[in-house]
Amino acid sequence: MEFHIQAEDGLSNARAGQLITSHGSIATPVFMPVGTAGTVKAMHHKDLEEIAGTRILLGNTYHLYLRPGMHILTEAGGLHAFMSWEKPILTDSGGYQVYSLAHRRKLSEEGVMFQSHIDGSRHVFTPERVIDIQRNIGADIMMAFDECTPFPCDYEYARKSMELTHRWLDRCISHFESTQPLYGHHQALFPIVQGSTYKDLRLESAHYVSDCQMPGNAIGGLSVGEPADIMYDITATVCNVLPREKPRYLMGVGTPANILECISLGVDMFDCVMPTRNGRNGMLFTSEGIINIRNQKWKNDFSPVDPQGTAYVDQHYTRAYLRHLFACKEMLGPMIATMHNLSFYMWLVNEARQRILRNNYQDWKNDMVERVSRRL
Amino acid sequence: MEFHIQAEDGLSNARAGQLITSHGSIATPVFMPVGTAGTVKAMHHKDLEEIAGTRILLGNTYHLYLRPGMHILTEAGGLHAFMSWEKPILTDSGGYQVYSLAHRRKLSEEGVMFQSHIDGSRHVFTPERVIDIQRNIGADIMMAFDECTPFPCDYEYARKSMELTHRWLDRCISHFESTQPLYGHHQALFPIVQGSTYKDLRLESAHYVSDCQMPGNAIGGLSVGEPADIMYDITATVCNVLPREKPRYLMGVGTPANILECISLGVDMFDCVMPTRNGRNGMLFTSEGIINIRNQKWKNDFSPVDPQGTAYVDQHYTRAYLRHLFACKEMLGPMIATMHNLSFYMWLVNEARQRILRNNYQDWKNDMVERVSRRL
Repeated sequence: MEFHIQAEDGLSNARAGQLITSHGSIATPVFMPVGTAGTVKAMHHKDLEEIAGTRILLGNTYHLYLRPGMHILTEAGGLHAFMSWEKPILTDSGGYQVYSLAHRRKLSEEGVMFQSHIDGSRHVFTPERVIDIQRNIGADIMMAFDECTPFPCDYEYARKSMELTHRWLDRCISHFESTQPLYGHHQALFPIVQGSTYKDLRLESAHYVSDCQMPGNAIGGLSVGEPADIMYDITATVCNVLPREKPRYLMGVGTPANILECISLGVDMFDCVMPTRNGRNGMLFTSEGIINIRNQKWKNDFSPVDPQGTAYVDQHYTRAYLRHLFACKEMLGPMIATMHNLSFYMWLVNEARQRILRNNYQDWKNDMVERVSRRL
Repeated sequence: MEFHIQAEDGLSNARAGQLITSHGSIATPVFMPVGTAGTVKAMHHKDLEEIAGTRILLGNTYHLYLRPGMHILTEAGGLHAFMSWEKPILTDSGGYQVYSLAHRRKLSEEGVMFQSHIDGSRHVFTPERVIDIQRNIGADIMMAFDECTPFPCDYEYARKSMELTHRWLDRCISHFESTQPLYGHHQALFPIVQGSTYKDLRLESAHYVSDCQMPGNAIGGLSVGEPADIMYDITATVCNVLPREKPRYLMGVGTPANILECISLGVDMFDCVMPTRNGRNGMLFTSEGIINIRNQKWKNDFSPVDPQGTAYVDQHYTRAYLRHLFACKEMLGPMIATMHNLSFYMWLVNEARQRILRNNYQDWKNDMVERVSRRL
C-alpha cells in the first residue's frame, strides 16, 4: 500500500492525496459509505459506483462474522467476490459493534466474550481472532482490535483502556505479520489511537501508534457523543503527532461540517452511517443545508430534491414526491434519500479535494461549514 | 388512442400490436408493473425504464386518492408530473381495492361508501367520482368503476353484480364524455367485463362491453382464486366476443404461465403484483423455473442470480449473496429480486411478441409454460 500527498493547503493542515491499494487507487480526502453486512443499505452497486462515485466501502467485521459467516466468505473467495465489489474495502475490527450491539459481553486481557444480537450465541473476539477474521474477509485495509471508550469516560478507565488497546495492538501486529492474505491481494493493517477526551492520553497513544510504523493510522473513540469542539481539539492534537506521510482515518465521523473541519486538521479518510441511516429516516444533507423531507412544508414543493445536487435523484424527483414516498413508507423514499446523501457526501469531499489542489481550501471550507449546517 | 395489429399467430389467437397514447407507443403484448401509490416498490424510475424496459405503468386510484390526494395531484399537474414519469400510465378504478383493503364498505346503486385502511376516514366512490378522480390523476388509460366478485360467487349474486357493473359503466361513459382531460393529453376509458365464472354471464357482459365501442376493453374478476383452467376458459370465451381490432386487457393476471396462455387466447395487456410482491418475499421467476432464494440450498451457490437473465442484477450478483441479503432483511434483497422479476416479465412478453411476429408463438409457448412452472 502506498500513499502519495499531492497537495497541502497553505492555511490549514488539509491535504489531497492518492492511496494505492490492490483494488485501485483512492483519491483523498475520501468518504467511505458503510456497507455493514456486505451491502450499503438501499443502494445497488452500480449506483454506488456510477452515481455516488464510491471509491472504497467499509464493511463491519462483527456483522460479517455472524452473517454470512466465515465459512461462506472463505468459500466465496472473500468479501470482494462474495458481494461482487471490485473496488477497495476497509473493515473495522468489530470492537465498536461488540460494545454497542452484542447482548452481553465480558472484557478480559485476552479479549471479549459476547453474545450475538441475532440469536444470543456466544463468541470470543481476541486480537488474533479479529486478524484471522479480517484475513478471511480479505479487506484491503484491516483495523486493529481496540476498546472504544464511551463519552463521558473517567480518566482512570480511559488510561487503562488505552493501555489495553496498546497491548492488543501489539498482538494484532504480531499476528498480522505471522499470517498471509488468502486471496492473492495485499492487505494493510491500521492501528487506532484511543485515549478518550484526555489530551495527555491521546498524545501518548498517538506516539505509541506512530511508532508501530504501519502504512496508515486511525483515530477512534470520537464521535461518541462529545461536543464537536472537543472532537476537533483531540483530532488536531492527534494529527500533529501522526506521521504526515501516512493516511489518517477518523473513524465514525460525521456530519458534513465535521468532515470539512477535520479535513482542515489533516484527516484523509472518513466513514459514517449518517448519510445512509439519517437518509432512511428522511434527513437530506445538501449544500444549502439540512432538509427533513417528512415536514409538511414540502408537501407541495414541486422543485427538485436538490437543485444544486449532481446525482440522478436530485434532478429527477421532486421534494413533494419524496415526501409522499416517506409518508407512504414506500421503499423508494429511503432509496432516493440514500442515493442523494451519499452523492452529496462524495461531492463534498471531492470538492474539498479540488480546493486543496488549488490551495484555497480554508475560505471555501468556512463558508461551506455555515451553509451545510443550516436547517431548511 | 390508436391500436394497430402488426401480426397474428397462425396456431393461436395471439397477436402483436402497437397501442399509441399521448405519452408514447406501447408494443404489445405488454406487462404493466404495478405502481400502487405512484411508485413501483423498490425500483428507481431509470431502472424501470432502462433495465426492466417498462412501457406503461399501472397506478391504483384508491391509493392515489387517499395519498397524496387529489389536491396535491392536481397542483402537481397530474400523476405523470407528480412522479416524474414521462411514459404512459393506466389507472384502475379503485373498485378492487375498495373491496379488498377498505375497513368497511357499503354498496348501493349509487356507489360505495368505505373507510380508509389508513385512518378510517369515510369516503364515497361513485362511477362519476371515479371518473373525476382519474381525470385528476391524468392517466392515459382510465378504467370504468366495477364490482369485482369473489371466487366462488353464487350465480344470482354474480348476475346482479354484473348488471350493476353495466349500469355503472353507462354512468362512467356518460360522465367521461361530459368531462375533459385536465393536462392537455388524451385519456381513454376502458370498460370491464364481469360475470364471475359463468359463461352465459360473461358472454352477456362481453357483448354489453363491446357495444360500448370504447377504444379498448378489459376482463375483470379473474385471478381471484379460481383454478387456472377456469381462468383460461372464461378468458377464451370473452376474447371471442371482444372486438379483434381493439386491445384486450386481462386485469390482475398473473404467473408467467398464465400470461403466456392468455396471450395465446388473444390478450394484449396484463398487470400483476406478483413479480414485485413475490420478489420482495424472495421468489424469483426465471426462464428455467421458480427460485425461492431463502432456501438453504442457495447459501453457497456462487453462480449468477439468473444465468439466462438479461438484467444488470442477473449477471452482477450471485444467488448466495442474494440469499444472504434476504437472511439479513437487507433492502437490497427485495431491490434485486424486484428488478430481476420485472425484467424477466418484460423479457417474457417481449419474447412472446417476437415469436408472434415470426408466426411461431404456439410451440415456443408450450415449451416455455413448462419451463417457467418448474421449481428450482
